[in-house]
Amino acid sequence: MRVIVLGGDGYLGWPTAMHFATRGHDVWCVDNYLRRRIAQETNSEALIPTPNLIDRADIFEAVWGHRINIEIGDATDYRLMSRLFEDIKPDVVVHYAEQPSGPYSMMGYDEARRTLDNNLGATFNVIWAVMEHAPDCHLIKLGTMGEYGTPNIDIEEGWLEVEHKGRKDKVLFPRAAGTLYHTTKVLDTDLLWFYVRTHGLRVTDLMQGPVYGLATAEAESDERLAPNFHYDDIFGTVVNRFLVQAIAGVPLTVYGKGGQTRGYLNLKDTLQCVELAMNNPVDRGDLRILNQFTESFSVNDIAQQVQKVGNQKGLSVVVNNIDNPRKEKEEHYYNPAHSGLTELGLEPNHMTDDVVSDMLDHINRHSNRIDKRKIMPRVSWRAA
Amino acid sequence: MRVIVLGGDGYLGWPTAMHFATRGHDVWCVDNYLRRRIAQETNSEALIPTPNLIDRADIFEAVWGHRINIEIGDATDYRLMSRLFEDIKPDVVVHYAEQPSGPYSMMGYDEARRTLDNNLGATFNVIWAVMEHAPDCHLIKLGTMGEYGTPNIDIEEGWLEVEHKGRKDKVLFPRAAGTLYHTTKVLDTDLLWFYVRTHGLRVTDLMQGPVYGLATAEAESDERLAPNFHYDDIFGTVVNRFLVQAIAGVPLTVYGKGGQTRGYLNLKDTLQCVELAMNNPVDRGDLRILNQFTESFSVNDIAQQVQKVGNQKGLSVVVNNIDNPRKEKEEHYYNPAHSGLTELGLEPNHMTDDVVSDMLDHINRHSNRIDKRKIMPRVSWRAA
Repeated sequence: MRVIVLGGDGYLGWPTAMHFATRGHDVWCVDNYLRRRIAQETNSEALIPTPNLIDRADIFEAVWGHRINIEIGDATDYRLMSRLFEDIKPDVVVHYAEQPSGPYSMMGYDEARRTLDNNLGATFNVIWAVMEHAPDCHLIKLGTMGEYGTPNIDIEEGWLEVEHKGRKDKVLFPRAAGTLYHTTKVLDTDLLWFYVRTHGLRVTDLMQGPVYGLATAEAESDERLAPNFHYDDIFGTVVNRFLVQAIAGVPLTVYGKGGQTRGYLNLKDTLQCVELAMNNPVDRGDLRILNQFTESFSVNDIAQQVQKVGNQKGLSVVVNNIDNPRKEKEEHYYNPAHSGLTELGLEPNHMTDDVVSDMLDHINRHSNRIDKRKIMPRVSWRAA
Repeated sequence: MRVIVLGGDGYLGWPTAMHFATRGHDVWCVDNYLRRRIAQETNSEALIPTPNLIDRADIFEAVWGHRINIEIGDATDYRLMSRLFEDIKPDVVVHYAEQPSGPYSMMGYDEARRTLDNNLGATFNVIWAVMEHAPDCHLIKLGTMGEYGTPNIDIEEGWLEVEHKGRKDKVLFPRAAGTLYHTTKVLDTDLLWFYVRTHGLRVTDLMQGPVYGLATAEAESDERLAPNFHYDDIFGTVVNRFLVQAIAGVPLTVYGKGGQTRGYLNLKDTLQCVELAMNNPVDRGDLRILNQFTESFSVNDIAQQVQKVGNQKGLSVVVNNIDNPRKEKEEHYYNPAHSGLTELGLEPNHMTDDVVSDMLDHINRHSNRIDKRKIMPRVSWRAA
């Protein structure tokens, strides 16, 4: 199939592009390096330096014999998007082209505005490029479980059957996100659903939990093909942060009470999920929403597991509950459904002690690059 | 009170500014004339030519002895907004600064993009200007009943008590709008609610139905103070369109079956409602949502009433069911709550036959200006 990966330089974008290319698909990677710029501006560079996309594609081709096409450009520029979709006529577009940091989006006006403009602008342009140039294209959008927030009811997969005053309807599941970044994904879903209804788009919106890990089949073949692995407070997801802290001998930074519970998944499972969505497209006029995670943990659960496995490996891992810089419930009900991807065939890679141990070993090979200044939270919105 | 009216040149903005000024409030009107530009670009000028805002303010002061401060500028420009809120330190901001046409937002990419950028950008800037410079300011935002769409359940005022699998929560009422314009107001509400939760804003979001009428106490004092009354397919609301069609001897354009039901209100009641919201502010950290309309009609109901009253006045009013250019349900359940504003003291001006008759007389005085080319729908999104 002909696949465009928007945000193809990202933590998930680049592994996705390689994964699809090795399976024989024709892949185009589009990225404007926004995440690289923000990482530099906020002193939040990834643990392992990654070559630029042109270099990555050449290294990948040398190792694997498949060509990934690279386009450096901005998804919020409609001239670019229009030309790409007109030329390529993709069967599938995977849209990761979003500013992905919650804390960054909470720093101030400029960061919030950049997040809103980039994320909404990119989604709006993908929608229109598909409508104008590739109306049968399956649009696979990465949303986030964070769109739902932490309601007091079971979270379903995108939709809720409501009975109210004796009448029934099926509605978009209510959403209440915890950062502006997560809120932009709520807006994305609103936009997608609107154009699905009026213009018959074909959309899968994947509500993904926090992803952890560094290893994929392709990335392991050559260190230069590694995903950009962030462990800082801005871009790092909590599992990845704790792993690096354990290696660095820094106490694990549990924000507040640590009862915050979310659904997590291994980077390898992101690739599986996106591939399953691609291989099982929806009809025109359908918005399919799938909750993309494999197991739920509280922050304390994760800290305890990293501590246990770390200590078994001779590290002295300490857990510290620090002031929560975020506004979020630290104890709450959480029971989200996630059967849709299992039904499509997902075979989860769970976060076993062995998986944690392997990740620690991998990070340990790069321990000389850990910058401890990147570890403590530098952005707070609790006091706001 | 110190009141900023954003979009103060609009159909509702200018009457609101005058209404507040005559009650002794200090009023600042901000507008960038976007609606005037779009009206010109789409050949959709209002029935009665209106002076520019500077002239309007001078005429108003000459008649009423109150000064309205005018600022010509763009709410999507944060330098302007920041300066205004820092200088004025308003007690209240009434935010009408949105591209208000559903059909315009459905014309194509450029019109849709302009609507998204303007409406989200203005709302985002108001939020930040309040947070940074006037955190106690009461933000009164005009939303639309169209945010809810036409669900199969009773529409509540903004919130829904949900019971699901034995657990309960109160959630934002589900939304599914019919045009991109209405969808931008869904996104506005999402943004407002997010910043209310995280930064303790004080917000009233008024879900307003279509407004009709030309008369307010201040507007009737001098023809040059009239609101900009649109009767075209782009900016005209259905009641206003039918009234002009009746005067022009053109068959009333009922789109499709005409069973589309909405909640309507008189322009005078918009002023009452916004004033009631202002005089009864909410606490910091509260998002109050009120459904702002006084009575529900189907399109057929309105056509029949205009026909009846028109014929009584000697007009020969014909009703035509034409192909519906929109995607919308033409027969549906509709039972929205609207007790909140009544409880605050709203005394409705209902659409009696006398009110219809007065509006017909008023329009008849300007019948020579009716341009029949503006009447038939020029934008369709049914075929899309």
